[in-house]
Amino acid sequence: MKVHILTIGDELLIGQIINTNAAWMGEYLTLNGAEVVGSSTVGDTAAGIERYVAMALEEADVVLLSGGLGPTKDDITKTVLAKYFDSEMHFHEETFERLCKMFERFGRAPMPSHKDQCYMPDKAIILTNKRGTAPGMWFENGEKVVVSMPGVPYEMKYLMEHEVVPALLDKFTLKPSVYKTILTAGAGESVVADRIAAVTDALPENYKVAFLPNLGKVRVRLGAFGSDTDTLQADLTEKVKLVVAQIPDLVYGYDTETLESVLGKVLKTKGLQLATAESCTGGYLGHRITGVSGSSAYYKGGVIAYANEVKMDKLEVPSATLEQYGAVSEETVKAMAAGALARFGTDIAVSISGIAGPSGGTEEKPVGTIWLAISNQKNTSTYKLQLGKDRLKNIEYTANFALNRLRGFVLENY
Amino acid sequence: MKVHILTIGDELLIGQIINTNAAWMGEYLTLNGAEVVGSSTVGDTAAGIERYVAMALEEADVVLLSGGLGPTKDDITKTVLAKYFDSEMHFHEETFERLCKMFERFGRAPMPSHKDQCYMPDKAIILTNKRGTAPGMWFENGEKVVVSMPGVPYEMKYLMEHEVVPALLDKFTLKPSVYKTILTAGAGESVVADRIAAVTDALPENYKVAFLPNLGKVRVRLGAFGSDTDTLQADLTEKVKLVVAQIPDLVYGYDTETLESVLGKVLKTKGLQLATAESCTGGYLGHRITGVSGSSAYYKGGVIAYANEVKMDKLEVPSATLEQYGAVSEETVKAMAAGALARFGTDIAVSISGIAGPSGGTEEKPVGTIWLAISNQKNTSTYKLQLGKDRLKNIEYTANFALNRLRGFVLENY
Repeated sequence: MKVHILTIGDELLIGQIINTNAAWMGEYLTLNGAEVVGSSTVGDTAAGIERYVAMALEEADVVLLSGGLGPTKDDITKTVLAKYFDSEMHFHEETFERLCKMFERFGRAPMPSHKDQCYMPDKAIILTNKRGTAPGMWFENGEKVVVSMPGVPYEMKYLMEHEVVPALLDKFTLKPSVYKTILTAGAGESVVADRIAAVTDALPENYKVAFLPNLGKVRVRLGAFGSDTDTLQADLTEKVKLVVAQIPDLVYGYDTETLESVLGKVLKTKGLQLATAESCTGGYLGHRITGVSGSSAYYKGGVIAYANEVKMDKLEVPSATLEQYGAVSEETVKAMAAGALARFGTDIAVSISGIAGPSGGTEEKPVGTIWLAISNQKNTSTYKLQLGKDRLKNIEYTANFALNRLRGFVLENY
Repeated sequence: MKVHILTIGDELLIGQIINTNAAWMGEYLTLNGAEVVGSSTVGDTAAGIERYVAMALEEADVVLLSGGLGPTKDDITKTVLAKYFDSEMHFHEETFERLCKMFERFGRAPMPSHKDQCYMPDKAIILTNKRGTAPGMWFENGEKVVVSMPGVPYEMKYLMEHEVVPALLDKFTLKPSVYKTILTAGAGESVVADRIAAVTDALPENYKVAFLPNLGKVRVRLGAFGSDTDTLQADLTEKVKLVVAQIPDLVYGYDTETLESVLGKVLKTKGLQLATAESCTGGYLGHRITGVSGSSAYYKGGVIAYANEVKMDKLEVPSATLEQYGAVSEETVKAMAAGALARFGTDIAVSISGIAGPSGGTEEKPVGTIWLAISNQKNTSTYKLQLGKDRLKNIEYTANFALNRLRGFVLENY
């Protein structure tokens, strides 16, 4: 099954937003065994959209459109497709009822522009969008398929996962392929690649290896292609074991797991409670931990100790420590972690203090200097990071580091 | 000047990396007055690249290629273009000398694959790449231009800024265009569109309006095209005023500003200090506030009060309040905000408690029920949100809502 991804919107062409939809769709399709042969972006003009759909159909069996389905007048994908497929428009009662119910829940009535959204091309199969107002549309053109989805990422993803890809897998016979992603943290791409080279260099021709680095984490994706899924799957499982055996200290999970979901599982299994004390990460570590549903089972809470006054008042950091060593120091993060343990009465506490940047550094403590401590009643581990000048990257990297070290701390100490 | 951006590489198609090059090029070209009419991505195959170049030349005066110029065997852009433009390859001494000098600086010798890189099509004008090994190539096809650049972002950017765009501005007369983005929060896309319709419907033909909604925020972008930049800019400024006059309650900023940067400016100007008390957002609001460099000037810190125990101990929420009304209630967020004010000694405090989901709701308080309070010594405002079931979306929406209401609270009360 050859697929072309067509994203629509002036905002993409002029670079106002980065095309994350195309990347997500490309990855999701590939993992489901489709071959993505091309991807394109066109602005909000009828002639442009028509031209690009025609070009895409020349090379692909399936054209997946994202964007241009909202209620405002710059969204014209629907009328272009109706014309292209020689469709009349009719009022789609089911969609209107769904919208009315949706608005009812919010105590509001649909607006006229929402009613307009319910006129649908009669040649389209309507795909229910449970995440938003604009439904998806599935057109067939002989053996070829054109599907239109909204551009809002979570609406597009919902339709891809629940409607579009399942239906495509029904209609087309795909070349069997299997994938497994090994999740690592604690080493860079070249280190990971070097350490597993003996295994990956010896992989048969039908294997593909990809390295996906991201701020202290490297995903290693193994893909195998062949003729029988069961055989492939069994073989892949063996190969994954061989890879993992080279880097057991770096692997934290597989596929869709995250550092925070894995940490959560470990804490829950051991019946441990965690508290956080954050300065330069400003609550981001707490956010990552609580982004996992059910985190209240092991996370009690934390202090965002941005001002030194808060470090002293809420975390019992002695003013002498702050004066002598400064807020960004091993001594301060140790005191913060100890204070969090005492004040929150948890088994484990983690603390972070640093200079996130882009300004605020000194010669002795340049921007990107970040200290962390992880403590329980018996042990304390401290870490110093020396990162770059990008504030949000530093915050993200530090949270990744903290989550991974917390996992290690639990496994070593409990 | 109509431009098509063609990015090359399997890694883009399968979503292994996000196409930031296309976004950067689109924005840089637009700001320089070019009209980006399309953008596409093709894999590392000769037939594919040839086909996409031909398609791009049908709609554009200029095709800008990025990617596929490295020394590894999957990088084939150069040979495809040489064939396409009926060019012989010749050894380009100048490039080889530059490479030798470059490697000399690193104390290394060029590898054979680097020497191969120095064979260039004789019909191309060679563009010196001071940031890497592969030069750019400028081909002319009658009045049309095809330029090939490396895919490494900083190499591509260097060539765009120093070679490609200056040369394009010499060759083509550009249609001036100007843009302004109005940032709004507090109403959905349809409400914003309806409220400004009287103005936008009356805009002249040379104007374009786009709506970019995202979780409680809607960006409205006005673009104007014409013959004189100064006249256009003056006219656009007037039109923007007319639009803003329809929705003064919704507009929080322009262009690259954010809710948190605007809130920060307002707090700083008024000399106010802020504290946060978060339950279901788990630190995300604190993260958004501290994502702004310099936020320590107005943000003291906060409590992540995930467990009820923390709400009582750290924020003085009476256990009777929690028992009688529950953690997700107006009474509890009021007590949390009052407690944060008292404990942190700030001018303003914001509190949040809700059911982020996807599970944990009751009939009376379904998933997505979220309460907020904003308090100072005199006034308290409370808000109830009824959102959906998507945990991370609910957290993000709530933070946007809180940031926007905090801004409103400051403007009303100080």
